Amino acid sequence: MKILAIHGPNLDLLGKRENDIYGEETLEIINEGMKAVADELGAELEFYQSNHEGDLVDKIGDTDADGIIINPAAYTHTSVAIRDALSAKPIPAVEVHLSNIYAREDFRHKSLVAPVVSGQISGFGKTSYFIGVKALIGLINGSE
Amino acid sequence: MKILAIHGPNLDLLGKRENDIYGEETLEIINEGMKAVADELGAELEFYQSNHEGDLVDKIGDTDADGIIINPAAYTHTSVAIRDALSAKPIPAVEVHLSNIYAREDFRHKSLVAPVVSGQISGFGKTSYFIGVKALIGLINGSE
Amino acid sequence: MKILAIHGPNLDLLGKRENDIYGEETLEIINEGMKAVADELGAELEFYQSNHEGDLVDKIGDTDADGIIINPAAYTHTSVAIRDALSAKPIPAVEVHLSNIYAREDFRHKSLVAPVVSGQISGFGKTSYFIGVKALIGLINGSE
Amino acid sequence: MKILAIHGPNLDLLGKRENDIYGEETLEIINEGMKAVADELGAELEFYQSNHEGDLVDKIGDTDADGIIINPAAYTHTSVAIRDALSAKPIPAVEVHLSNIYAREDFRHKSLVAPVVSGQISGFGKTSYFIGVKALIGLINGSE
Amino acid sequence: MKILAIHGPNLDLLGKRENDIYGEETLEIINEGMKAVADELGAELEFYQSNHEGDLVDKIGDTDADGIIINPAAYTHTSVAIRDALSAKPIPAVEVHLSNIYAREDFRHKSLVAPVVSGQISGFGKTSYFIGVKALIGLINGSE
Amino acid sequence: MKILAIHGPNLDLLGKRENDIYGEETLEIINEGMKAVADELGAELEFYQSNHEGDLVDKIGDTDADGIIINPAAYTHTSVAIRDALSAKPIPAVEVHLSNIYAREDFRHKSLVAPVVSGQISGFGKTSYFIGVKALIGLINGSE
Amino acid sequence: MKILAIHGPNLDLLGKRENDIYGEETLEIINEGMKAVADELGAELEFYQSNHEGDLVDKIGDTDADGIIINPAAYTHTSVAIRDALSAKPIPAVEVHLSNIYAREDFRHKSLVAPVVSGQISGFGKTSYFIGVKALIGLINGSE
Amino acid sequence: MKILAIHGPNLDLLGKRENDIYGEETLEIINEGMKAVADELGAELEFYQSNHEGDLVDKIGDTDADGIIINPAAYTHTSVAIRDALSAKPIPAVEVHLSNIYAREDFRHKSLVAPVVSGQISGFGKTSYFIGVKALIGLINGSE
Amino acid sequence: MKILAIHGPNLDLLGKRENDIYGEETLEIINEGMKAVADELGAELEFYQSNHEGDLVDKIGDTDADGIIINPAAYTHTSVAIRDALSAKPIPAVEVHLSNIYAREDFRHKSLVAPVVSGQISGFGKTSYFIGVKALIGLINGSE
Amino acid sequence: MKILAIHGPNLDLLGKRENDIYGEETLEIINEGMKAVADELGAELEFYQSNHEGDLVDKIGDTDADGIIINPAAYTHTSVAIRDALSAKPIPAVEVHLSNIYAREDFRHKSLVAPVVSGQISGFGKTSYFIGVKALIGLINGSE
Amino acid sequence: MKILAIHGPNLDLLGKRENDIYGEETLEIINEGMKAVADELGAELEFYQSNHEGDLVDKIGDTDADGIIINPAAYTHTSVAIRDALSAKPIPAVEVHLSNIYAREDFRHKSLVAPVVSGQISGFGKTSYFIGVKALIGLINGSE
Amino acid sequence: MKILAIHGPNLDLLGKRENDIYGEETLEIINEGMKAVADELGAELEFYQSNHEGDLVDKIGDTDADGIIINPAAYTHTSVAIRDALSAKPIPAVEVHLSNIYAREDFRHKSLVAPVVSGQISGFGKTSYFIGVKALIGLINGSE
Repeated sequence: MKILAIHGPNLDLLGKRENDIYGEETLEIINEGMKAVADELGAELEFYQSNHEGDLVDKIGDTDADGIIINPAAYTHTSVAIRDALSAKPIPAVEVHLSNIYAREDFRHKSLVAPVVSGQISGFGKTSYFIGVKALIGLINGSE
Repeated sequence: MKILAIHGPNLDLLGKRENDIYGEETLEIINEGMKAVADELGAELEFYQSNHEGDLVDKIGDTDADGIIINPAAYTHTSVAIRDALSAKPIPAVEVHLSNIYAREDFRHKSLVAPVVSGQISGFGKTSYFIGVKALIGLINGSE
Repeated sequence: MKILAIHGPNLDLLGKRENDIYGEETLEIINEGMKAVADELGAELEFYQSNHEGDLVDKIGDTDADGIIINPAAYTHTSVAIRDALSAKPIPAVEVHLSNIYAREDFRHKSLVAPVVSGQISGFGKTSYFIGVKALIGLINGSE
Repeated sequence: MKILAIHGPNLDLLGKRENDIYGEETLEIINEGMKAVADELGAELEFYQSNHEGDLVDKIGDTDADGIIINPAAYTHTSVAIRDALSAKPIPAVEVHLSNIYAREDFRHKSLVAPVVSGQISGFGKTSYFIGVKALIGLINGSE
Repeated sequence: MKILAIHGPNLDLLGKRENDIYGEETLEIINEGMKAVADELGAELEFYQSNHEGDLVDKIGDTDADGIIINPAAYTHTSVAIRDALSAKPIPAVEVHLSNIYAREDFRHKSLVAPVVSGQISGFGKTSYFIGVKALIGLINGSE
Repeated sequence: MKILAIHGPNLDLLGKRENDIYGEETLEIINEGMKAVADELGAELEFYQSNHEGDLVDKIGDTDADGIIINPAAYTHTSVAIRDALSAKPIPAVEVHLSNIYAREDFRHKSLVAPVVSGQISGFGKTSYFIGVKALIGLINGSE
Repeated sequence: MKILAIHGPNLDLLGKRENDIYGEETLEIINEGMKAVADELGAELEFYQSNHEGDLVDKIGDTDADGIIINPAAYTHTSVAIRDALSAKPIPAVEVHLSNIYAREDFRHKSLVAPVVSGQISGFGKTSYFIGVKALIGLINGSE
Repeated sequence: MKILAIHGPNLDLLGKRENDIYGEETLEIINEGMKAVADELGAELEFYQSNHEGDLVDKIGDTDADGIIINPAAYTHTSVAIRDALSAKPIPAVEVHLSNIYAREDFRHKSLVAPVVSGQISGFGKTSYFIGVKALIGLINGSE
Repeated sequence: MKILAIHGPNLDLLGKRENDIYGEETLEIINEGMKAVADELGAELEFYQSNHEGDLVDKIGDTDADGIIINPAAYTHTSVAIRDALSAKPIPAVEVHLSNIYAREDFRHKSLVAPVVSGQISGFGKTSYFIGVKALIGLINGSE
Repeated sequence: MKILAIHGPNLDLLGKRENDIYGEETLEIINEGMKAVADELGAELEFYQSNHEGDLVDKIGDTDADGIIINPAAYTHTSVAIRDALSAKPIPAVEVHLSNIYAREDFRHKSLVAPVVSGQISGFGKTSYFIGVKALIGLINGSE
Repeated sequence: MKILAIHGPNLDLLGKRENDIYGEETLEIINEGMKAVADELGAELEFYQSNHEGDLVDKIGDTDADGIIINPAAYTHTSVAIRDALSAKPIPAVEVHLSNIYAREDFRHKSLVAPVVSGQISGFGKTSYFIGVKALIGLINGSE
Repeated sequence: MKILAIHGPNLDLLGKRENDIYGEETLEIINEGMKAVADELGAELEFYQSNHEGDLVDKIGDTDADGIIINPAAYTHTSVAIRDALSAKPIPAVEVHLSNIYAREDFRHKSLVAPVVSGQISGFGKTSYFIGVKALIGLINGSE
């Protein structure tokens, strides 16, 4: 089983900027943590980060993974293209956010992506990713 | 460590009505599953279900638990009282939903409770509860 | 055949307050009138009034009636919980209002309950209830 | 006593098109059913159908009936002229709809006519008309 | 095969008024052009123009054509009745506009008719009609 | 010089219904008053009343008058077709209303016709018409 | 009989700036024209112009005139204070505008003053004032 | 003379939680303060607190007090039922709030209750209650 | 201790116009009543009324009072300048209204000033002022 | 003559995913069909597909084509950059959509691109492209 | 060359109140800084500050300056009169703000004045004024 | 000191297209002008133009400049990603626009970027850039 983990724009800066909002952990630490969860459950994990909406659309369209975990970051609120890419891909996807997007600015309350993913997890910091990977594998295994 | 699991209005009907939306599992099965997760992590679990907004507010105000996992169901979208009760309680809370509320009717897209909880998990069926319990215990332990 | 007639908040005051809006008849007179209609059509009638949203949800969930006639009064405009309870109950329901809610304040023009009931009758005073009972029995009999 | 029954645009197609929404009955069957109700209560019934907003306004202005039962169909949502015609006519009027307009598209949730009629009945198929006639005769007789 | 071409209000004035918006061609020239296209493809063409919303509804309901090409003009933005008439007619329909309605006043950006037709063509002047006829014949032939 | 005076839907009822809103004068009295003003200023006056939107559009398109005074009544707020007809007619037009439409219901505050006429007069009862005729003749004479 | 003519902000610039919108006539010419109309009808006329909202409120509150003709200009759209002053003054008032405010920017379509005046005249250039004076005198004389 | 003081949801927590918003005083201290004011003015005072919307409606409907002072707390913004209960009760009512609700979140700016009470006092901490009692007694005495 | 009492536009008319809305008392009577309250509590009172927004801003900026009681009247709903002036003044301010502004027209429901004052009192007629003075003195004394 | 055909994000998936919405044809088949039309009319055709908004902007800016046919897909609803690129390019452009965007989700009803293209064609499946090419060539030839 | 520098309401308080928002500099220091810039570029500078909307309108109408630099402060968001005054004045104007108005409350995000000035500068503290003067002189010299 | 100047989509076309809106100067001329200003103040300047949102995000994240001057062009109104990138970068940024965006289409009035930059300058053509560079250097030097 193969999982694709997609990180949207500016997430390469995690742990380096605005730690009060996004926490102290770098993207590498998050990726390692996800890998540990996936390893334990017998899944392979591929990581991908880009600041380009088109790259994210390309990656979703091209991947041969069995499921996607995605934090679309800023594109959560503006990208119909990523929504359409996820909707067209016949594999389960889980949307995750580090911070509670509903406790931030108004324009972050609306996710264009949420209606086409299987589930959404937000507000648990890096743990959002870890429980997201676990939930996604469960979805792929058809156990929930 | 003690966890309070709160089920909002009509959730006593789970597995008995509208299974196409809410799934086939009864509330008892969900509660047992949460108990298994809590047991494993050394936490005690108390269950509470009510169709009464005031009961839910009372329970939140009175509990001596260390954390709350709550599916406010219909009151998610209409209750400022539950929001205020959660906001006034100095313990972590996690909001869960069985179905993806962002893929349902417009009036279900807005959660009044979301801005005052630590995190939100939606769309994974009964698994929403299980990973919610685990994430909540992590929050209480201060490990995330 | 058994019919449940549910009266929402403040309807116990009918005929005692604000008669210019709600008419001169008490709830007892309305109930007797409904009973006469039901008797004639061979149906049993149970009455229930409460000011508590949760009580109304409980009652809808618990009843073994074959159909529901309901005037949700103030909760018409604010209760997703009653909507969900009616939607989850696999029996026909009819929404009635004494006054023409579309000729009153703006916030009374929107019924959260209307989309999940079979039909709605408003504006005929106590007669709204009587023709509602008759229409409901027709729906149960499958004759319309 | 004389009742005018007005059918708005496209209602001549009833029972011939889109039966899944409007049911299987033709307008003739509905008219006969209304006539039976009126006969029993000693009232005369005149029928009028037109696809022309102006015709409906003319008819309302010209009639010497004692009451009007009207299904304005599409004009329910767009015609201030029919509203004004009904408002200017010093006789009671009842608005009826075959389907539950509140469970259809958003633009059908708003009735421009509702605030100026005595009452509204929707969602009971052809029975909406029959109980409408009965309620209207009651209004004319001053018995409610 | 028979096609009905419907021209909405004020289109009889084409080529006579406001040529800067609508172009220099008269309705007769447009009709002749459509006829040439239909002839070539072996279809018969009937023309109908009216300033009356009700007439357009009547015509749609009564026609025995195999497809409709319609420029509802001003009624594009206000007529639920024409929408309902087209929706009830089990034949394909194509909506055309001479000018680009999305580059004009705000209230012209919304077409009530668009959701119930097969396709929409706008902005090509008289050519909108010609390619509309061709596309409609294709739809009837089931070739697309 | 020839003036066309157009009266919209329900205005044939003036002086016969709802006198508290529209005043006690009949349409005939208003027409006579306008005629007196026009006579004095050497203009001929043609009167036209219809409840049909299409008739009003036809009349505007067909007239050979030098100017139009129009009270579109209910169509003021709903007719893009009348707006387009007036806009396409290269003669001055004046919009008049008996009552102050800005002191009535919200949906009467918006005139679709206002942006395409030369001027608007509202609130002076029948005098609205008389000063409208005078102002219109002034516009035609180019004196203002 | 005494009439007060009030000119709002920037109207002292008439005929000196932006003639394409407001015309070529100065305020003096307009005042003289109004005076001629008033003289003929036996009324005295006082003129007042100010760019100060408070001055206009003061003037309305203090005047002993029998009627007011007012062009509130920019304050039309922003001044609740002028609205309240006119509403509190038990004499008739007429609102006038040189240009058709409904054909200009959106924020000029809404008049806060309109609901509390007797009538409104817009779009006739300086003639708006002259027919306004005449109409106002008619209102004071009770002849309409 | 008897006064009923009603405290809405979560107000039992006053002085125990979120003191930065609601102040340091407990509900008991507020009640004692109100009692002192009432004693001095010769009025009896009954206290009632509940987290249940229905309880508050019941209490308003059942009381034999001569006036009501109410802090509906969270229900201020969501309860049509409490509004209707107050509106149906033919005794004066005063709405109070500890904090300035207009300086908090947007959804707290709208009070559904405000239009049906005699007056509203907000922002003075516990003093809001004390001056509310005094003002209410004045209203009952008819002295204001 | 010195208190500044500011009366906004048109309040000089109190007791002289529209008594049904504002009551029968003149501004002089209100001022005397406030003075009596202030005297009793050992505070000096200065009165200021103006119809000019700028005057009110000047006065707030210039005063050496220890607190402000203000009824901004019409400027409540339109003046950012008065809001900014109050916000910039480091002394407590209390907003008062004679009538219940939430029971009047929609545009009076929004106070631009409310978020920057300490508290708001509305609906008690002249008593609004008296209890406002008392509450303000309490705020200055730091006793609440 | 040279035509540039631009395909927006996810259109490379045509015929491979969600065939119920987009049809069974691949992008290659559509391109071949367009080529056939262009060949017949003596025009050269260049194809371009990208999931990157910036690529589409680059391509529009760089092309030496005489006209553009574009299906911006998801970017239709979110890209001001593509709108600006088309607006800045002094050659005709035609917008096409496979499905009827007005019969899909609300956020797809608004095209940011529509106001700056010559015309729009939607809802005819692959035929939308073919008649688009033909119409575009007509525009370039100046024949319409 | 002569420049008029206009300061709106409450700006006389600069450096004396709310320094956290507006900075520590007084209006005198800002004026001196602007004078230094103007001197260097050979322009004369006149200063004007008022809390009165009408004064600002008067000043704009009366000035013989060659250009205006204006910080309308609170009137930025509410004054159509100042907008009209600037629009009527055939000289260039520059709008400046000390703070970034787009990072403050929502109602400060909209400038009624912005559409009629040449340019806008905000967020640089006193430097906003200095670069505004320089830019304005450039505009007058026609060098940009 | 190093400054990064970022030019958003389509700005490479400056001076080549739509000169009526954007002016006659090419991007090269603007860059040279900025360089002259920077040279004089002892700052180094790097230029970057791209039509790709992701490229702009990358560049902001990667740069080692001490400040950013940015004209996000079309992305001003749609890019949360650029906003987040600027917000995460702990160096001052200045937003510039050639034209007055508040005098163009409605969708250009809202800048997503404005709340996170230090200041904004719009409407002065190429001079917007020059004074922007100067202001930015001042911010970096901490002199304002």
